Order: sequence, then C-alpha cells, then structure tokens
Amino acid sequence: MTPLVLGIFQYIGPNGTVGSAWQHPDDTSADFTKLSHWTALAKQFDDAGLDFLFLADSYGFPALDGELLDASVREGRGIPHGDPMPLVSALAAVTEKLGFIVTTSTTVEPPAANARRFATLDHFTDGRIGWNIVTGSSGATAAALMGKELIAHDLRYDMADDYVDVNLTLWEGSWEDDALVRDKAAGVYADPAKVHMVHHEGPYFRTDGILNLPPSPQRTPLLVQAGASGRGRQFAGRNAEAVFVGGGEPETVAANITGIRESAVAAGRSAESIKVLVGALFITAPTSEEAWAKHAEMLAMSTPEGAAAIYAGNTGVDLLALDPDKPIAQTSTEMGQSNLERYLGKDGKPAPLVRDILENFRRTGINGSVFVGSPDEVADQIEQFVQQTGADGFLIQPHLTPGTYDDLIGLLLPVLRERGLAKTGHEGSTLRERLFGEGNVHLPADHRGYAFRAGRD
Amino acid sequence: MTPLVLGIFQYIGPNGTVGSAWQHPDDTSADFTKLSHWTALAKQFDDAGLDFLFLADSYGFPALDGELLDASVREGRGIPHGDPMPLVSALAAVTEKLGFIVTTSTTVEPPAANARRFATLDHFTDGRIGWNIVTGSSGATAAALMGKELIAHDLRYDMADDYVDVNLTLWEGSWEDDALVRDKAAGVYADPAKVHMVHHEGPYFRTDGILNLPPSPQRTPLLVQAGASGRGRQFAGRNAEAVFVGGGEPETVAANITGIRESAVAAGRSAESIKVLVGALFITAPTSEEAWAKHAEMLAMSTPEGAAAIYAGNTGVDLLALDPDKPIAQTSTEMGQSNLERYLGKDGKPAPLVRDILENFRRTGINGSVFVGSPDEVADQIEQFVQQTGADGFLIQPHLTPGTYDDLIGLLLPVLRERGLAKTGHEGSTLRERLFGEGNVHLPADHRGYAFRAGRD
Repeated sequence: MTPLVLGIFQYIGPNGTVGSAWQHPDDTSADFTKLSHWTALAKQFDDAGLDFLFLADSYGFPALDGELLDASVREGRGIPHGDPMPLVSALAAVTEKLGFIVTTSTTVEPPAANARRFATLDHFTDGRIGWNIVTGSSGATAAALMGKELIAHDLRYDMADDYVDVNLTLWEGSWEDDALVRDKAAGVYADPAKVHMVHHEGPYFRTDGILNLPPSPQRTPLLVQAGASGRGRQFAGRNAEAVFVGGGEPETVAANITGIRESAVAAGRSAESIKVLVGALFITAPTSEEAWAKHAEMLAMSTPEGAAAIYAGNTGVDLLALDPDKPIAQTSTEMGQSNLERYLGKDGKPAPLVRDILENFRRTGINGSVFVGSPDEVADQIEQFVQQTGADGFLIQPHLTPGTYDDLIGLLLPVLRERGLAKTGHEGSTLRERLFGEGNVHLPADHRGYAFRAGRD
Repeated sequence: MTPLVLGIFQYIGPNGTVGSAWQHPDDTSADFTKLSHWTALAKQFDDAGLDFLFLADSYGFPALDGELLDASVREGRGIPHGDPMPLVSALAAVTEKLGFIVTTSTTVEPPAANARRFATLDHFTDGRIGWNIVTGSSGATAAALMGKELIAHDLRYDMADDYVDVNLTLWEGSWEDDALVRDKAAGVYADPAKVHMVHHEGPYFRTDGILNLPPSPQRTPLLVQAGASGRGRQFAGRNAEAVFVGGGEPETVAANITGIRESAVAAGRSAESIKVLVGALFITAPTSEEAWAKHAEMLAMSTPEGAAAIYAGNTGVDLLALDPDKPIAQTSTEMGQSNLERYLGKDGKPAPLVRDILENFRRTGINGSVFVGSPDEVADQIEQFVQQTGADGFLIQPHLTPGTYDDLIGLLLPVLRERGLAKTGHEGSTLRERLFGEGNVHLPADHRGYAFRAGRD
C-alpha cells in the first residue's frame, strides 16, 4: 500500500474538533496564545516525520441572529480563535522538514497582498508553505465583522477562481527563473529584462504590478481546498493540489473522493493530481480497553450545548430550539449542508431526527471520522477505510494536547510504518515534493497555473 | 539628558535607505529571504538593549507611468520588498525584550482582520508589538496592484481615523479584563457575560462582531505613524503614541516636532504623549578618518540612477528627465512633498536646482540625517541635534548589514550610555512600557482609545 499523507489539523484556539478538551487536567491547549506552546508541538511533529501542520482559520465565530452563544464562550469552542498567519515563521525556524498549510479567505484578504504574504512565507519556510483557500468560513459572522454583505455561495467560488488567477499571475508571471542575479562585483541584483509587470483584468479582480520578491522555492504555495459542494468541487478540480474532506461513512467519503478526482479530470488534469485527505480523529492507547476509556473521557467533555453552538455557528440552525424527535432537512450554509449530508436521508433513507444529529455531532464533531482502539486495531480500521474510500491520507484532528499526539507518534505511527502505511523518510525539501515526490517543486504542467509562468519557451 | 528611544528601521529587502549596500563584500542583506538572517539580527538588537525593530513596508514599488525603473531592479532598490507581517513571530521566539513595530496599510488590509492579526501578535510577542499605521505608501503602484483607485490624500486620513476606530473598538471593547476564566474544574473557559459584541458604524467602515481572542498584554498595540502633512499630523495627534519623522536641517525637524506635539495637545492629550523619533544614519568607526572613509564607500555604492528611481517611486517625478540646472517646486504625492520640503525654497529661500535635489537625495536618502564621525563625534552631533530639535530618539537607518549595527552597538552605544543618552536597562516587559516607563502597559486615559474599553466603571 502506498504510504499515506499525514498532516495535523489545528486552529489557534483552546480546543480540538470534538468537545472541550482544554479542561482536561493534562491538556495544555489553553496556552495557545503562547509561542512556546506551538514551537514545542511543531518540533514534535517534525521529529516524528509527519508531513505538515494545517492551520485552519475562521474569520467569524459561532453566533445566532447576531448574538454570541453562551456555551461557545463558556467552553472555548469557536471563541477564541486567533490568526494563524503570524505564527508560521516561528515554527519554520525550529523545524527542518515539516510543511505548513495556512488558511486565508478570498472574501477577506486583498488578492495581491495575499500573494506577497505567501511568497514571503515560501521564502522564510524554504518552500514548505501551502495555502488553504477558503471563500468564506463562518460566512455570516465573518461578513458582519468585515462590514461586508454575505456573498452567495456560487458567486463566492466564481470570485475565488478570479482571485486565484491574480495570485498565480503574480507568483508565476512576474519574475523569470533566472531574473535574480546577485552579482556583487557587477553591482547587479536582478536583471530588469526578466522582471515583468503583470496585468490581470478579471470579472471581479484586477491587478497591475509585480510580485515584489524574487522567485521563492515553490513559487506557488501548495494549493489546498476543502469545499464539498458541487461548485466547490469544480473549484478544486481547477485549482487544488490537496483537498481536505470530512469523514463519515466510507461509502459517502468514497463518493466524495471520486467526485473530486473526476473534477480534476474535467479540468484537464490527472485523477492523481489531487491528494485527498480525510479528517479523522485517532484515539489510541496500548490496549483497546484503555483507548475506549479515553474515548469515554472525551465524550464526557463534550456537551450537547457546546456541540449545538458549533453546529449553529456553521449552519445557522439551533438544534436545541427544535423538537428533538422531529427530522431536519435543511440548513443555510454550505458547511452546514455538507455536514448535514452525512446524516440526512438520501437515497430513500429516512431523514434523521434532531436528537440523533446533535448526538452524532457531539460525538464526531465537524470533520467526521473517529477511530478508536489499540494501535493495531486503529491501523486495521485505517487500512480498511483507505481501501474502501481511495483516500490518500488523513488530516488528523486534535483532541488532547499533547496526549493525542503522543499516542499518535509513540503508538500508532510505528505500526503504520511497519505496514507500509506511513512514510519512513523524507522526499525532497519542499511541501509539494513531500506530497508528490522528489523533484515536484513547482506546479505541474497540467495545472492551469503553469501557463502563467514568465519566460517559459 | 533623558535617555533616547532607539529603534532600528528595516524593510524586507536587500538595501538600506542610502545606496545599494548589498553589493559590498561584507554585506549580508541580500539574504533577507532567509529567516536565519533576521533571527541573528534580532538577537543582536535584543542583546544590545535596543528598544525595537521597526519593519517598514510598502505595498507598492518604484515605477513611473506603469513601467518599472531599470535602476530599481538592477540595484535592488525598492524591488524586492517582502511582507514584514509573517516575520515577527520567528524574531519574538528568539528575543526577550525587543519590541517589533509592523507596518500595515489602512487602504489595503481589512480593518477587523488587521485587529485580530495584531492581537494575535501581541499575544505571541508577550506585549512587544506596535502598529505603524500607513494610509497608502507608494500610493499609485500599490493601488494599481490592489486593483483599486488611488484615494485622495486627506480622504485617506479621514478613512484611517475610522479604520483605527474599528481596531480600537475590537481591541478595547470586546473582552472585559476578567472575562478569561480558565477554570478547568468548573469547565469554564470564559465568562459569557463579559465578552461583548461590538458595533461600529462609521462613515467608511462598519463592524459587528468580536475580537476573537482574550485580552492580549497591551490590548492595543503601540500606535505608530509617520505622516508629515497637516492632515497626517492631525491624525498623529489623535492616534499616535510614537511618530517617525524624517531627518534634515535641525530647524525643520524642530518645527515638525513642535507641530506634532501641538497636534497631540489639540486632541486633548499631553505634549509628551507622543514620542517623536527621527530617521538617522550613524556612520561611525574608531577614528574620524575611518568613519569618513566608510561614508565615502557608502556614497560610491549610491548612484544617481538608483536615487532617482526611489525618488520617482515616491514622488512621481523623474529627476533624470528634467533639466538639472533648473529648480523644481512640485510633486504629486505626500511623501514626495514632505521630502521635497526639505529642499524646497520656503521662507524666501530660492528653490533648489534639480541637480542639488538629486545629489542630496543620493547622499541622505528618503529619511534624512546622516551623522558621520568617531563615536565621540557622533555622540556630540546627536546631543546637539536632540537639544536643537526636542527629538525623543532615533529610528536608525541601516547601511551595511551587519556592519552598521556592529559599529552602533560596539562603538556608539557605550558612549551614548556613558553620557546618559541611551538606556542602561529595561523598564517593564511590553513595548509601551519600553517607551513610556514601567506600568504603562495599556493606552493612557487621555488617548481616545481608552474610552472604548468594555466593563470599565
């Protein structure tokens, strides 16, 4: 079996994706405002040979009808949530090979500023940066915070395509490969004939200017995306090199992954040009009993109120205000929709009850699959899940910090490596090589960004 | 004499403010794309007891009529220029006391995103962050790059006042001082009664939401500004805690500083509530002769073409296209205007010739004062300059890296300390305390941001 891509999902806050784990006596994640908390984690991931740290972001926060939800504040769920962008360089400075995927939003950040920020980071990380492209997470609260109107879902993706064009044009089209000269004796820093003004006039964004940095190791950061809607999938097919999908029933995940690969093919790319990574939480311990005890401990820190707050923030639906014994079949946001699809009655299945949705959400959180057991049992489950779904790897959700990671690295990884399910060494030094093998430093020829490159014959 | 505030001016590029120093055999600044270059410098500044590192930024680049200027690219002047924002955490992780002032633009960054980014950095730096507020440096090229129209100068400042309001509201008004509880046993992360939605509806910006982070050490970062126009000075009076002014003739600088203090008083603040720092380049060596030899070496790396490129980028005026023997009296941008004012005929003086302006700019660069001599001679010049101008300190311009800093720290600082012109120890741990003394962690009561604080009796 091909070794899996294994990354760690984190956001700049005190909790993981299930429950309110900061309150556990051994948990350190309420120290998330301290750099030392993050540098220690990054070193641990780097030493363990994990592929990357994925820094999620939401510009918004859980709220309903313009009001905060008490459970969200009380349990630290969705509130607080810091900005991951300023964190990366401190982590890059203390790691050697670990990649960093940072989330920014195409409806918040100015596109050319985004391009220069990521180019700066690609330099500072020596080519270990990726960009998780979101079009508007926690849409309504983020829009109100930014003083903007919420943009309709499909239009957001139309704009995001244009936004990515601005970025690709700047990253690929401004400096030729040999524009940087750095000849001290001749006094020539760069060759003026090889640095180009780029001009983009799209339906939503325009730019006239340069990327004001010489080519960074990867030029374009690894492009990552997570949209699960039809329009989101089309966007992924055109742009993404890695896609993060929620977990859930293997058949649902398999269909989702197939759809993403088809969208790549529809955009003229190979089916393998996108690595699909599934959100999953691994709860393991030396024995099965201990693992299930940890699972029970996790659920004891996961309240219906906290789950409902996160659910409400993502969907606009307050499950606690509904009759628990009635079904629910609609929600107002894409993320809500894709989450609901995990539970909703499709293909003739009956729509689930509110109480079941809430309980499922309380147990598995926003991203889905929870694997529990001894290291061998979890490895068995992973192997089966990958065979059933065709996943390329996992985006591993945190629970206890650093407990979840100690168990992952100390117990599970050795078993996965024995079975050939995890890498035993590094390939190349950039994040793109990490996922696609040595030598694959830049966008491949079948990616539309390739055509933006300046000075190519 | 009161010890001076001493900060280092840097931008993310290969040169200082005069000439093209990267080409010097001993200069390392072309390594500016490497984190290790910056962490070494930051450690040097921190160990030396300097107050802060000021990271300048320009979202634009030198250009004329939409075309790059060859000399700018060839000499690495203004091009390249990376984003300072992602650099800070790596420097904070390796330093103890050094402050960091980061530039962002009110016409580029979304205000609520800016607020969260700086709040995140105030946490990560343990209260050592400052915000240099610019309204649109390199205006025309930055606007074209961002796909926006260039906004008229005074309107930019009107908008900036509103923009700062959004930031102050979020920093000061969202979380009460004791909102963060972190009681593991009770399972209470924060008190919902003490986290507040803020609502701002200004003439240009609006926000409804929260700052999604518990209070950071300073809450509001140290507010820094550099505008020298009448409207810029009014903005400084209302908002700034430190103002950076260009150097030049002592009488001009003195008048400028007096004007800034008057603007603070006009805004209901004390004249001392703003620290005024003057841009200056110190070229020193064990003997006067060696210092002047360094100065000559610097000028040999400063070409008229390179100076004209930077000048053109800032003013829209191509000095090389004009008759060198005729006077010049107007320019198209604020920065151009404030630079020109250093040379222009005022108070009955004749307007200077193009050749004199260019030569002066080639020798002193954009920020003005160059002090040359043995450590004692430079200390004498500094002492006299401070007495003549009332400056609170200097923003020290780089020339050779690390040479300028080795000389500053090894030769000049000990003399300044002997004379009581430089601090011998630290006060407090935050950047605001660094400038205003121990205990002055938050905005003072006479700053308009004080009134935004939530939960104050």
